[in-house]
Parts: sequence; C-alpha cells; structure tokens
Amino acid sequence: MPDSKVAFLFDLDGTLVDSVYQHVLAWHEALSAEQIELSIWRIHRKIGMSGGLFTQMLLRETGLEFTSERMERLQQRHTEVYRRHAGEVRPLPGARALVSALRDKGVPWAIATSGRMETARSALNLIGIDLADVPIVTRDQVKNAKPDPDLFITAAQRLGVAIESTMVVGDSVWDILAAQRARALGIGLLSGGYSPDELKEAGAYRVYEDPADLLNHLDEVGVRQ
Amino acid sequence: MPDSKVAFLFDLDGTLVDSVYQHVLAWHEALSAEQIELSIWRIHRKIGMSGGLFTQMLLRETGLEFTSERMERLQQRHTEVYRRHAGEVRPLPGARALVSALRDKGVPWAIATSGRMETARSALNLIGIDLADVPIVTRDQVKNAKPDPDLFITAAQRLGVAIESTMVVGDSVWDILAAQRARALGIGLLSGGYSPDELKEAGAYRVYEDPADLLNHLDEVGVRQ
Repeated sequence: MPDSKVAFLFDLDGTLVDSVYQHVLAWHEALSAEQIELSIWRIHRKIGMSGGLFTQMLLRETGLEFTSERMERLQQRHTEVYRRHAGEVRPLPGARALVSALRDKGVPWAIATSGRMETARSALNLIGIDLADVPIVTRDQVKNAKPDPDLFITAAQRLGVAIESTMVVGDSVWDILAAQRARALGIGLLSGGYSPDELKEAGAYRVYEDPADLLNHLDEVGVRQ
Repeated sequence: MPDSKVAFLFDLDGTLVDSVYQHVLAWHEALSAEQIELSIWRIHRKIGMSGGLFTQMLLRETGLEFTSERMERLQQRHTEVYRRHAGEVRPLPGARALVSALRDKGVPWAIATSGRMETARSALNLIGIDLADVPIVTRDQVKNAKPDPDLFITAAQRLGVAIESTMVVGDSVWDILAAQRARALGIGLLSGGYSPDELKEAGAYRVYEDPADLLNHLDEVGVRQ
C-alpha cells in the first residue's frame, strides 16, 4: 500500500556524477583491445545494465565466444581505462544541492548502482556522500543488477521504507525498467545522454534534465518545499 | 523540380566514422581547461553544428564572456585532444561498403562536414575516400555551417545535381534541419548517439541504425538494387 511520504533511490553514474561518456569509451577501448569491434553508440545504449547482461548482449551481437578469462580481462581493462579518466569526472549540476535538500527536509534517500564499490567510491566522494550516513547498494551486494529490480528493492529495505513509496532516479532506460519491475516510480534524467522519449517509453513517471532541474521541481514528485 | 534519380550527401563524423564520442570528450576537456564546466550530454547534443553557433550556445548557457583569443584556444585544444584519440576512431559498420555500392551503381555522392579539412582528412582516409575522386565540402569552404544549408547546397553544386534530388545522410539533428532548409530529404543514422525520435522530430525522412543498415535498405531511398 503506497504511503504519501516518499523516499528517493538514486542511480550514480550519469545521475549524480557526469561519468557515462568516460565509461562508454573505457568499454570501447577494453573491447578493442580484445579485437571486438562494437560501435560506440551501441555501448552507450547498454551502459547501466548489469555486466552479466552486457556480456550476453555482446555474445549475441558479435557472435563471438566469451570465456570467463576473457570476460575477466575485459572487466579489468575497463576499470583500468576508466581510472585514467576518473580525474575528469565532475558532479552533475545540482547533485550536491539535491541530496543536501533531501537531508535537510528529512526525506530518506539511498544510492543503488550497477557499478562495483571499487569504482563507485570516487564518485561518492565527488558529491560528498559519507558511506556511514547513507545506504549504498552496489552490484557486489545483489544477485542481479539492472534491469532486474534487486538493487532498488534492497535499497528500500535498507531505508526501512516500502518500495511502493519510492522514486527511483536514473539516467538510463535500465533504471526506469528496473523501477517498474520493483513497483517504484521512475524519474528519468537526461544527463546520461538518453533522449526524453527513450526514458518515457521505458515508463518514466517524469523526466528532468539533471539533478538541478529535479531539485527545482521537487514539488512535482512528492516533496513539499 | 525533383528528379527521379537521387544523389547522396554524407555527413562524416558519426555518419561514416565512429568519432562523435571522442569529439564530445575532447570538447569537454578543452572547456574544462578554460574553467568552463558544461555537462557532457549538453556538448553531445550540440556536436555537428557550426563552431560559431556552438560558441554562441556556450555564451548563452554559461553566461560567460568569450574573447576571440579564448575561442581560438578552445578550438586548438579541442583539435589537440581529439588528435590524441584519433587512433581509436574506426569506420562505422558498412561505411566503406555503402560508398563502394553507390560508386558501382553510378549514384553520385559527396561529403559535407561541419569539421575542418585538417581534422576531416584522417576520417576520409579511414574509409578509403580519395579526395581526387569525391567532392568534399568542409567548414572552411562555406560561410555558415550546419544547421544552415550552405554545406549541402555547395556539395550538390559540386556534383552538378539539383538539391531537390539529394538525400542528406547524417547522425545529428543539425544535419536533418540543414537538409530541410536546403529542401533535400534527410536520412538519420543512430550511430552518433541521438535517438530515433530526436531525428524524426527534426524531420528525418527515414531513420537507420548505421551505414550497414542503410545499405541494406537502399531500395527504400531511391536506389534500385
């Protein structure tokens, strides 16, 4: 039974930090190093889904065989290349202000990311999130990542709120699909480079440009200003 | 008066070569070096328009003053950073096969790019385009680049065909808008990372995934197989 009080579950890459394009090119470089040629826009459209599903997509679209050693090398290379670019990554406009506003108003919020804690840590530092204060659910902690609903369901449990009272905020189609699976409402942000239509077609309840734009419209999504 | 015979005018970055994301991150790095913080998805959505308009957008969206020296530094830095990544750039799937097929069938085609000859040359080499054989219209050669129609109108003139008999093939909203201004038909490709809806809303006559997908559907756009 939905509650009239809301809580927020945030994706991280492309939602609070401006890191999607660096992740995309890091995957492209890792794949090229294995002689796997995949167009960059196709990688962009799969970013944010679980690594396991991303791999299965690769299997289908390239027709190649993937050994677990090769998958391990791909993941490691991606992490290495991304780390080289991590210094260029900035918080998205309004990200810090948005989480501060929720904190000040006593609105519960948590982070749920398909990334691993290893790479998530620097992003969390960028927006000044203290791991002791805020529940952070990473890919390491659940069986299936997005578009499966596990990350968001676990984050709601950590907050002690009903999933039906949460707003999932994400930049990718996979966040919004996972929100629907979980019976949360999905708020789409354009800051990961998807179009408004792609997010609406995936079932987004509302679409905003970035965290700053969402902060300006919190009244629309259940937070009294 | 439209002719029943068609000719093709191709954009280059994101349409024949997979270079959009590298250009986007090169602009981001150049802007950051000038302490101009702009979200990466906003740069992505402006890529492909003329440098002059890109600058005016920056003026409006950041509220900063741009001296011509600063603009010069930005352009130079972008070119430098892009060159570092140019080795990672690949032809898009089907790009070589598509232009070969048109050549074999005697269908006239040309290149019209908002980029400068300096950066376009390596992309042209990648797809094996001989500058002596094919008209190449670059930003250096016209007064106004996309979304103004000058590049495409000039390319049609070089081919000696009526602009109304041309199909403009591009990956960005600016290509499609320029095609409409020129009274050409615009074919949108998803390979630059825009969504089908964005290209259709800009007035695309048809939308395909990439050059390979267009090659498979040439019958739909006036080329007898």
